[in-house]
Amino acid sequence: MSRTLKLAVIPGDGIGPEVIAEAVKVLDIVVPSTDLVIEKTPFHLGVERFLETGDVLSEDDLAAISRHDAILLGAVGGKPGDPRIPAGIIERGLLLKLRFSLDHYVNLRPTTIFPGVVSPLAHPGTVDFVVVREGTEGPYVGNGGALRQGTPHEIANELSVNTAFGVERVVRYAFELAAKRERKKLTLVHKTNVLVNAGSLWSRIVDAVANEYPQVSVDYLHIDAATIFFVTDPARFDVIVTDNLFGDILTDLAAAISGGIGLAASGNINPTNAFPSMFEPVHGSAPDIAGQQKADPTAAILSVALLLEHFGYAEAAARVNDAVAADLSERGTTVRRTSDIGDAIVARLA
Amino acid sequence: MSRTLKLAVIPGDGIGPEVIAEAVKVLDIVVPSTDLVIEKTPFHLGVERFLETGDVLSEDDLAAISRHDAILLGAVGGKPGDPRIPAGIIERGLLLKLRFSLDHYVNLRPTTIFPGVVSPLAHPGTVDFVVVREGTEGPYVGNGGALRQGTPHEIANELSVNTAFGVERVVRYAFELAAKRERKKLTLVHKTNVLVNAGSLWSRIVDAVANEYPQVSVDYLHIDAATIFFVTDPARFDVIVTDNLFGDILTDLAAAISGGIGLAASGNINPTNAFPSMFEPVHGSAPDIAGQQKADPTAAILSVALLLEHFGYAEAAARVNDAVAADLSERGTTVRRTSDIGDAIVARLA
Ligand SMILES: CC(C)[C@H](C(=O)O)[C@@H](O)C(=O)O
Ligand SMILES: CC(C)[C@H](C(=O)O)[C@@H](O)C(=O)O
Repeated sequence: MSRTLKLAVIPGDGIGPEVIAEAVKVLDIVVPSTDLVIEKTPFHLGVERFLETGDVLSEDDLAAISRHDAILLGAVGGKPGDPRIPAGIIERGLLLKLRFSLDHYVNLRPTTIFPGVVSPLAHPGTVDFVVVREGTEGPYVGNGGALRQGTPHEIANELSVNTAFGVERVVRYAFELAAKRERKKLTLVHKTNVLVNAGSLWSRIVDAVANEYPQVSVDYLHIDAATIFFVTDPARFDVIVTDNLFGDILTDLAAAISGGIGLAASGNINPTNAFPSMFEPVHGSAPDIAGQQKADPTAAILSVALLLEHFGYAEAAARVNDAVAADLSERGTTVRRTSDIGDAIVARLA
Repeated sequence: MSRTLKLAVIPGDGIGPEVIAEAVKVLDIVVPSTDLVIEKTPFHLGVERFLETGDVLSEDDLAAISRHDAILLGAVGGKPGDPRIPAGIIERGLLLKLRFSLDHYVNLRPTTIFPGVVSPLAHPGTVDFVVVREGTEGPYVGNGGALRQGTPHEIANELSVNTAFGVERVVRYAFELAAKRERKKLTLVHKTNVLVNAGSLWSRIVDAVANEYPQVSVDYLHIDAATIFFVTDPARFDVIVTDNLFGDILTDLAAAISGGIGLAASGNINPTNAFPSMFEPVHGSAPDIAGQQKADPTAAILSVALLLEHFGYAEAAARVNDAVAADLSERGTTVRRTSDIGDAIVARLA
């Protein structure tokens, strides 16, 4: 008996195709040890497609992608300042469009410092936390606007929308996750002293849900204070739950302190499975090093592990994580090509 | 001939009074070397006053404070979660009220690692940058609101308001500052790929003003990427210009990498001098250690140096900075009382 998993693959822009090639190699080598059969469909989306056709993500693309069980995405976005590409058009029209249309309300971003990996922190301690970033609300909703644009009287507004519905479901997910982990600790990060409306909503919901999880200890940090602890005592964190923008900022910082954005994986999850979840490295398309086999595919490979875990293949996911860990601890400071790193990890899994 | 500077002193809450006592000692010792005469008026504002009277900052207080030439503020805010104090009421009703009413559109936050100070970064390099944080717009305007509060249908909105007027004046200040510094580098930090309305306004204004400052080199970073460079290569920064919220986050992170929030000073500046500027440590009121002489008054003392510099007393400011630097480089890991640190710095200036 086998299970078929239909996987939409979006290599995307810049270094996306290179890192996805390695991630797919890893998936292909590990899957035969499970009852999974993976059917991959490639989607040609991103800057090239936009420049050729003017399309970022058509309704047909979206419908086709939705018919899959999961998505593996590399990276999207052009060279900053490229005059042919309006700022954010690919990010918003493709990446955020997918997160919003497919209701990826949990953006899951684990952080650990693998043995042998050098942190920029002198004494990082034992870092092992997960940021549960809300994925469908906050300042990411695109509900801003501008008046009198281009004049000295221009007003540009951005609206952060937060709902009880949206906050409660991600907070519940975070508590569930915290309850399953060893330390059972949850930290809400927000800016309740300034963003009083959204902050009050988040705080009240965390307090209410906390009553159902007496085994989870809860604390709160303002976003500014949280960044301090990320560099002075990141070991204190277990599960962090936070809004879309604060989560964006914190997870890049988390990646930096744990050895770099080349190692940070993420899952954009719809826990109801009403829509396909999407797995992607946290890094961007890095057009400056694209096509040179300089990118580190580790984050993409670790995103494959998150995908396997999402579908209940914890053992296969652990094998990928272990192979990555072993590779990282032997890697040292040697500079290797993208495909060499992929091959080395594949060799460990073979 | 002497100049009289009317100084409103707001010690505030928690450790505020302790650190301000030391800052005032330093001011008193250094001022006689200048032509300044300082007339201090203390203002009893903060949690105690609120609990006694229900007032946070009355119109009379505000009018009285406005009649001064400058403000020295310690810290304000109660214990987080204190049921007698609604979240943010003191911060918004006092600190932000002052920043907004007195049109402190430049929130100036310099960062350097003083010799002898231990950074949590393994290899920080030579860090010497200034964050020019916008102080009167962005998500701090308090223009949010909530609907159906306390129900499962609650919607909580926060509005970030950005104007050409408000952005241009702070961007001009930042270019002026960059042009005067050795490296002449300006970095705009925003999130233009998501917050497209505000981001576009900030970018266009930076580009336009850049034409008038060909000697200043300009670059751009998304807020998430900026936090990465703060821990991997903070030495790359010279002047950073950014919005109110991103500036809040970045300056706490800046304080952390440069040895802690106990050393971070700030000036809330109205460059037109239409209203008094306000000088304050970046740190909060830290109620947990209040009244124990455990707080580091260095940030408050360095804020006095910013005050002196603001009024053109560069030499007196440099003397304070030098005394602090000497104290820090000798301080080592000895734990000293708040007043001992103040006394040691005063002794160097005497
Ligand atoms: C590319 C960008 C829109 C995106 C975000 O801000 O969410 C990225 O920074 C991320 O963290 O996945
Ligand atoms: C206390 C708070 C309102 C304030 C802010 O957010 O600006 C503080 O964090 C700061 O940085 O001065």
